[in-house]
Amino acid sequence: MYIWDARIRAIYKDTDQMGIVYYGNYYTWFEVGRNEFIRSLGLSYKDLEAKGIMLPVIESRCSYKTSAKYDDLVVIRTGIREMTGARIIFAYEVIREQDNKLLAKGSTTHAFADAKTLRPVNLKKRCSEYFDRLMNCL
Amino acid sequence: MYIWDARIRAIYKDTDQMGIVYYGNYYTWFEVGRNEFIRSLGLSYKDLEAKGIMLPVIESRCSYKTSAKYDDLVVIRTGIREMTGARIIFAYEVIREQDNKLLAKGSTTHAFADAKTLRPVNLKKRCSEYFDRLMNCL
Amino acid sequence: MYIWDARIRAIYKDTDQMGIVYYGNYYTWFEVGRNEFIRSLGLSYKDLEAKGIMLPVIESRCSYKTSAKYDDLVVIRTGIREMTGARIIFAYEVIREQDNKLLAKGSTTHAFADAKTLRPVNLKKRCSEYFDRLMNCL
Amino acid sequence: MYIWDARIRAIYKDTDQMGIVYYGNYYTWFEVGRNEFIRSLGLSYKDLEAKGIMLPVIESRCSYKTSAKYDDLVVIRTGIREMTGARIIFAYEVIREQDNKLLAKGSTTHAFADAKTLRPVNLKKRCSEYFDRLMNCL
Repeated sequence: MYIWDARIRAIYKDTDQMGIVYYGNYYTWFEVGRNEFIRSLGLSYKDLEAKGIMLPVIESRCSYKTSAKYDDLVVIRTGIREMTGARIIFAYEVIREQDNKLLAKGSTTHAFADAKTLRPVNLKKRCSEYFDRLMNCL
Repeated sequence: MYIWDARIRAIYKDTDQMGIVYYGNYYTWFEVGRNEFIRSLGLSYKDLEAKGIMLPVIESRCSYKTSAKYDDLVVIRTGIREMTGARIIFAYEVIREQDNKLLAKGSTTHAFADAKTLRPVNLKKRCSEYFDRLMNCL
Repeated sequence: MYIWDARIRAIYKDTDQMGIVYYGNYYTWFEVGRNEFIRSLGLSYKDLEAKGIMLPVIESRCSYKTSAKYDDLVVIRTGIREMTGARIIFAYEVIREQDNKLLAKGSTTHAFADAKTLRPVNLKKRCSEYFDRLMNCL
Repeated sequence: MYIWDARIRAIYKDTDQMGIVYYGNYYTWFEVGRNEFIRSLGLSYKDLEAKGIMLPVIESRCSYKTSAKYDDLVVIRTGIREMTGARIIFAYEVIREQDNKLLAKGSTTHAFADAKTLRPVNLKKRCSEYFDRLMNCL
């Protein structure tokens, strides 16, 4: 399975008054992870949109193991867990770089949708090149 | 089961360039939902913190049915799905008020933790009054 | 001068590890303030967009007097400071409801722009009804 | 004047339904800019906090020239505009890397404050090493 590591540093904006990164902000990090994963393949989500395809999220999950703190440098390790012509599941691990500790794990499930109508499309039919590149990551 | 409906209006800040509310922002709405749920019981999360207890999130999930859009007035319907002395699971439904359409469903699982050490505590032992009030919502 | 008071409660998401509301989040509150200001006139920003007009921000400012904290109920007091056919300046005060204390003051300057091209338009010419209603608030 | 360039890529989360980066999010980018500026000096904001000093924002401003868009790689160019023992003003330029176009300019004014009381402190007296390093950037 092909994976990609994106790096990001926790800033003040990410924290809350508990002194840890706000639980909802991991989903923003997941977006960074999947953007960079796609970019690492020589593809771009922006191009996919230009071809008229969007990937709206239909499910998201995260389980939190250890809190990320301000100024932590974290790795967002991203891979593809499952994929069909209709949808794709990205899996993520958030790891604190300093001690390699797993902070959180999660996933996002996306439909392939027409950019104008947001109706489902089959990626294999609409854009076989992207489909093949992504399938190769499994 | 006791439930509480909080109301919030989607603003520009919540949307993304897909023209819909960004998937991660539903978790912010969930926070509004559980804050108002707790307040509706005559309790307050702030008081709980003043008593030395925090509720860090250990798991969160959301499934997205229909996109919320800018200026939508949404109801965040919140209840307690499960609870023990060690943890609590809140369940949420996000409903578009205009047509009563279900936009998203989700849950957050929280540990009861000591505010200083973030170590697990038993709410029943540490704060039986809060424990009983919350258990009554099941 | 016509003003409108919107109310909002500071949540965990708004705070940072300093235990106060993150400085950038006041600009989100300003958006809530101007949305509700416009709505209070019987108008809606969404309708304005439907008429092909947008209000991109060209300048924003905020000065911070006293920190907003978690669970504070705040009033966002909004008015129009200046207006021409080409642009509008909204002014805001953020007030803690509990003790009427001024927390922050700020402003946002917006151009009137065509929704498709983002080029400047004259609101008086393009939508005189909106222009007149807003001018009456000065 | 010493300046430092931090790089960041605009993500979906940063955009709004106008298809551009939300005006309030530039202030988050400013935070990234000043964090990396301080780090580039071999200092860290986290260490400063450990020494009991915080830098609450007392004023912030931004003027927007050209909209940042999704997937734009932007440079946040940060320097110190003014500084006394009591406060510091950081100045920022946000530049689109692709064509070197200036997207926005802004500043944030910070007080030096005691981390516990949030009362003003004199940085020169409390932490002369940091004071000198920062003064050298003017």
